[in-house]
Amino acid sequence: MSTHALRIGIIGCGGIGQDHARRLHYKLQGARVVALNDIDRAGTEAFNAAAGLGATVHDRYQDVIDSPEVDALLIASWGPAHEEQVLACIAAGKPVFCEKPLATSAAGALRIVEAEVRAGRPLVQVGFMRRYDAGYRQLKQTLKAGTIGEALMVHCAHRNPSVPDMYVDDMNITDTHVHEIDVLRWLLDDDYVTAQVVSGRRTRNAHNGLTDPIMVLLETRSGIRIDTEIFVSCRFGYDIQCHVVGETGVASLPEPMSVPLRSGGRQSTEILMDWKRRFIDSYDVELQEWLDDTRKGIVTGPTAWDGYFASATAEACVEARHSQRITPIRIADRPAFYGR
Amino acid sequence: MSTHALRIGIIGCGGIGQDHARRLHYKLQGARVVALNDIDRAGTEAFNAAAGLGATVHDRYQDVIDSPEVDALLIASWGPAHEEQVLACIAAGKPVFCEKPLATSAAGALRIVEAEVRAGRPLVQVGFMRRYDAGYRQLKQTLKAGTIGEALMVHCAHRNPSVPDMYVDDMNITDTHVHEIDVLRWLLDDDYVTAQVVSGRRTRNAHNGLTDPIMVLLETRSGIRIDTEIFVSCRFGYDIQCHVVGETGVASLPEPMSVPLRSGGRQSTEILMDWKRRFIDSYDVELQEWLDDTRKGIVTGPTAWDGYFASATAEACVEARHSQRITPIRIADRPAFYGR
Amino acid sequence: MSTHALRIGIIGCGGIGQDHARRLHYKLQGARVVALNDIDRAGTEAFNAAAGLGATVHDRYQDVIDSPEVDALLIASWGPAHEEQVLACIAAGKPVFCEKPLATSAAGALRIVEAEVRAGRPLVQVGFMRRYDAGYRQLKQTLKAGTIGEALMVHCAHRNPSVPDMYVDDMNITDTHVHEIDVLRWLLDDDYVTAQVVSGRRTRNAHNGLTDPIMVLLETRSGIRIDTEIFVSCRFGYDIQCHVVGETGVASLPEPMSVPLRSGGRQSTEILMDWKRRFIDSYDVELQEWLDDTRKGIVTGPTAWDGYFASATAEACVEARHSQRITPIRIADRPAFYGR
Amino acid sequence: MSTHALRIGIIGCGGIGQDHARRLHYKLQGARVVALNDIDRAGTEAFNAAAGLGATVHDRYQDVIDSPEVDALLIASWGPAHEEQVLACIAAGKPVFCEKPLATSAAGALRIVEAEVRAGRPLVQVGFMRRYDAGYRQLKQTLKAGTIGEALMVHCAHRNPSVPDMYVDDMNITDTHVHEIDVLRWLLDDDYVTAQVVSGRRTRNAHNGLTDPIMVLLETRSGIRIDTEIFVSCRFGYDIQCHVVGETGVASLPEPMSVPLRSGGRQSTEILMDWKRRFIDSYDVELQEWLDDTRKGIVTGPTAWDGYFASATAEACVEARHSQRITPIRIADRPAFYGR
Ligand SMILES: [Mg+2]
Ligand SMILES: [Mg+2]
Ligand SMILES: [Mg+2]
Ligand SMILES: [Mg+2]
Repeated sequence: MSTHALRIGIIGCGGIGQDHARRLHYKLQGARVVALNDIDRAGTEAFNAAAGLGATVHDRYQDVIDSPEVDALLIASWGPAHEEQVLACIAAGKPVFCEKPLATSAAGALRIVEAEVRAGRPLVQVGFMRRYDAGYRQLKQTLKAGTIGEALMVHCAHRNPSVPDMYVDDMNITDTHVHEIDVLRWLLDDDYVTAQVVSGRRTRNAHNGLTDPIMVLLETRSGIRIDTEIFVSCRFGYDIQCHVVGETGVASLPEPMSVPLRSGGRQSTEILMDWKRRFIDSYDVELQEWLDDTRKGIVTGPTAWDGYFASATAEACVEARHSQRITPIRIADRPAFYGR
Repeated sequence: MSTHALRIGIIGCGGIGQDHARRLHYKLQGARVVALNDIDRAGTEAFNAAAGLGATVHDRYQDVIDSPEVDALLIASWGPAHEEQVLACIAAGKPVFCEKPLATSAAGALRIVEAEVRAGRPLVQVGFMRRYDAGYRQLKQTLKAGTIGEALMVHCAHRNPSVPDMYVDDMNITDTHVHEIDVLRWLLDDDYVTAQVVSGRRTRNAHNGLTDPIMVLLETRSGIRIDTEIFVSCRFGYDIQCHVVGETGVASLPEPMSVPLRSGGRQSTEILMDWKRRFIDSYDVELQEWLDDTRKGIVTGPTAWDGYFASATAEACVEARHSQRITPIRIADRPAFYGR
Repeated sequence: MSTHALRIGIIGCGGIGQDHARRLHYKLQGARVVALNDIDRAGTEAFNAAAGLGATVHDRYQDVIDSPEVDALLIASWGPAHEEQVLACIAAGKPVFCEKPLATSAAGALRIVEAEVRAGRPLVQVGFMRRYDAGYRQLKQTLKAGTIGEALMVHCAHRNPSVPDMYVDDMNITDTHVHEIDVLRWLLDDDYVTAQVVSGRRTRNAHNGLTDPIMVLLETRSGIRIDTEIFVSCRFGYDIQCHVVGETGVASLPEPMSVPLRSGGRQSTEILMDWKRRFIDSYDVELQEWLDDTRKGIVTGPTAWDGYFASATAEACVEARHSQRITPIRIADRPAFYGR
Repeated sequence: MSTHALRIGIIGCGGIGQDHARRLHYKLQGARVVALNDIDRAGTEAFNAAAGLGATVHDRYQDVIDSPEVDALLIASWGPAHEEQVLACIAAGKPVFCEKPLATSAAGALRIVEAEVRAGRPLVQVGFMRRYDAGYRQLKQTLKAGTIGEALMVHCAHRNPSVPDMYVDDMNITDTHVHEIDVLRWLLDDDYVTAQVVSGRRTRNAHNGLTDPIMVLLETRSGIRIDTEIFVSCRFGYDIQCHVVGETGVASLPEPMSVPLRSGGRQSTEILMDWKRRFIDSYDVELQEWLDDTRKGIVTGPTAWDGYFASATAEACVEARHSQRITPIRIADRPAFYGR
């Protein structure tokens, strides 16, 4: 309230862009949404009016970036546009929050890494929101506190009731599993070295020849073994499991809060059906921390390097799926810029 | 196997009598069923043949008691017959296991107590099976181990999905709550001194003007306060709850084992709908211990005194319900015969 | 962000007052803290500087209320001062959020009700924060959705590990149970008609002759029976339980989220030891909604009438504890001003 | 009781042999223990006397098998003796219950299979007791009922707090994992076709260079993928997990019953530390069914073929561990004798 509000430009004003615009403008502290851009200009003007933002609607994203009214950018356009838009923000020297993916290839993400290193100061954050989920944060605290000793194995599941028609093979890795790829690397504070993918028996509910479910096995530098079931036609719920096996115990991701019921011969709690509700609270935390960090000129969230590492790992998983082999994950040298 | 088998006479061969006959003869160690009696002679002969017992079917229960072939009796006739049948067993000097109720009034149960005291040796056990349930036994062990310090309060629920048409007011105390009355007295090793009954809002699912649910409040000699919700038209399951609040923690009756399921947007376990399955394993333990004790000439299960105490408590609860007052539970002097 | 910020004056700048000041100024949308008052002027100035509020510190609370810089008041002084401070706000025609209790007696609370009615517009909200807890809100939604039919009974527990030395008998009702009194009335949308209090066996951990635990029984106008165990020396945790028994099921207050652990021979989740953490998120929701409502000139949170009803109920409970009788709860006529 | 008791000879009277002897003689229906053999004759005579069996103690196991007093055999000697003892029973045409392993190699187990096939009637049962565990049986019923559709993946864990000094690498497969190998084949009614073994990060609590934990991946004929974490120095408990992922849900092995506790800031249930208690009830069911089947001349429990399949699978897992490859499981042709 008391400090100068960051003036935000939004590039990409579809569903998630609009949600973020309202969140920044009305719910969080220290931001005003002042500029908007989207390929659908009419829709964006309608949104601007309906939400009462009073922002300027630009035809070209570059104009949003260049506007002297804009302090920082949020990119929520479609994935293939991200790389050049992020590069343009870096070129303009303006902080940018980019929804995942940072780029549609590891090579593209690496170009962003290189540009940021050249720029010489932290400008890019990637929208991996699970790091901001209260449950994952409690789990990370538990690990750090040494409650279960060192982590040795991790058992995960990422289950969706169903996927849309446009969802095809490899998206279970690049769109779905990529969330585990990022959040587990952060949770364990470790990097991946190999990947393997095996298939379960195929569910009759899989459409379009999708291989479903599959299991991805990742091995970390320190030797931790991670298995993740990815099952996108599971029918019963959007169900995210994470069980970390340590030297003296097992710590698990909490289930979302739900009213315990006794009814109809069952004792039960809810499993969400809609993925949008599962991590909804984490968006607020993610963007509030981004705002606070941006004001300080730092990035404490997922960096461009993290976005690159996630892309490179996902690409190795895709390769491992096709080859059915244990596949090494090849990563560029980590620039000193990103610490550690 | 190695010792002489007890020869058992069964008085009352309806459903529970037949179950017990098969259990004693085929499942447990050290018993043979040799004599049967029931008002339905034809049905009993058919059962005898179908079960392959080779027992003698008698027209009169007294003949079963008097038979030199019979070492011990099990009474599973209807409640109003229990008192005179048990008294006849005592008169004959033969051990008897009597299904609850021991008698249909506290006065009747007290007459049995007095007869057993005069007989001078333990002969009578009452069929309160919950004392033999693995869950209640674990809970009692937990209390004895001092895990939660001294017990201070107990919160219980006794819920049935529905009750038959012949079930009318006061039966929720005399037939239903009487199980808590006995098992909590055993669990806490304490006696009751006052009773109070209050009504909840009446469910629209209660039939025949039944007051349902109700709550019974019992106070023990040591000051423990027990509240039990009795809800016999609860629709959702046969649900038995018992939570003991101690000085340093709360210990609860375990739920029956059930396969945890994730399906249809719910994470759930089963609540039994059928009361017969809830304590079915405890019948085996109950009768095996009775057989073993009977061979030793002792009674370690619910005694005639326990049966009397339960009846007297239930009568005070019924009185408390009608008067809506906190009602003292008046109990005869405890004969030294029953120890403590 | 986009609307004029409410300028808030804080009366009472101890722990809770300071927390609320930071919350309003830095975390929530649409408020600035501009004026402060407390009996400890030096401490308040130090706080003002440390928190960077830039507010004016006043010696007299009346000056805060009268300041043309102040749009609305938040009272977090000690309880005995509330009544006259709230009355002064009403007299000044300014909206006021008053931490509980609204007054130290039902009579005092009723004087506030009468003053607000005379003022003719909604000005007063009372700080019963549980109505803003996500768990209670989910539970209320479940009831409203008809998932368990009509509510018939409610079983609650309010347990504290221990209480400070200054905590004496009757505070388990007026300070502790008063939270259940308010939140259950809201949850069930019902009023109370009788109260009864019974004692459990006294824990050896109770200090200063405190009667602990106790059970409070409330009866609502529609016949719902509520029992609440209040146990303020329970040692094991700050443990809030609420189980609503309906016609077709039981719905319970969710436990706070916690990392499930398997370690040391136990499968476990955390029970908070510190009450301050239990409802901490609800303060944000409570004050944000108050800000939003205040801007609209309405009160949707706990009203002065709700504060009066809670006080009158607590007084009846205290009387019931001393008399050991079922005690009618006498309530003044509800002014049409408060709706329904 | 009513039928002729089977006269049992016990070969191997160490801990498990003595437990089974008492169980058969005193607890189950329809058996008498009449002959004993063990390399420790003095200890066996002492046991015979202490247990009051009145059995004949033989110096040579062959004499037990040949005794006309003996109807059936139970073998609980050390593993390397099993093969020749079982073959001797088959040669004598007598039913035999052999504790696992059936033989110390797949080749040895196959020789037993061939001998039984030549004998032309069912004589051999192997002591895989988990098939008799109430939890696994409930889980199998759930699968058969179609509650979660067809099984697609299975996630398991087999965790021990610690292992004795003599426990060395490969025993985590041949002694520990072999239980999952048998019970999952039975649970899924499917055979294995490939095995793979990967290691987790090694716990500092592993002794003697043991690789611990490991993960075994099995693939079934129908395509079901099974992963089992084997962690024998996990410190926290004897913890058996089994989660079956089906087309429409996940069904899990129930945890053993335990008193839920709220104490010391935790809500918890027990995890057993001692493996002997985990499946203790299943031994009774296992041997009672074996007795009943033996009387009928059938084997419904784990057959010699099942014992062979388990051995052959374990050998493939050991090979897979050493090669770090996905390893085919080669199985002899299934004799028509074993059905299906
Ligand atoms: Mg995101
Ligand atoms: Mg009974
Ligand atoms: Mg409050
Ligand atoms: Mg076995």
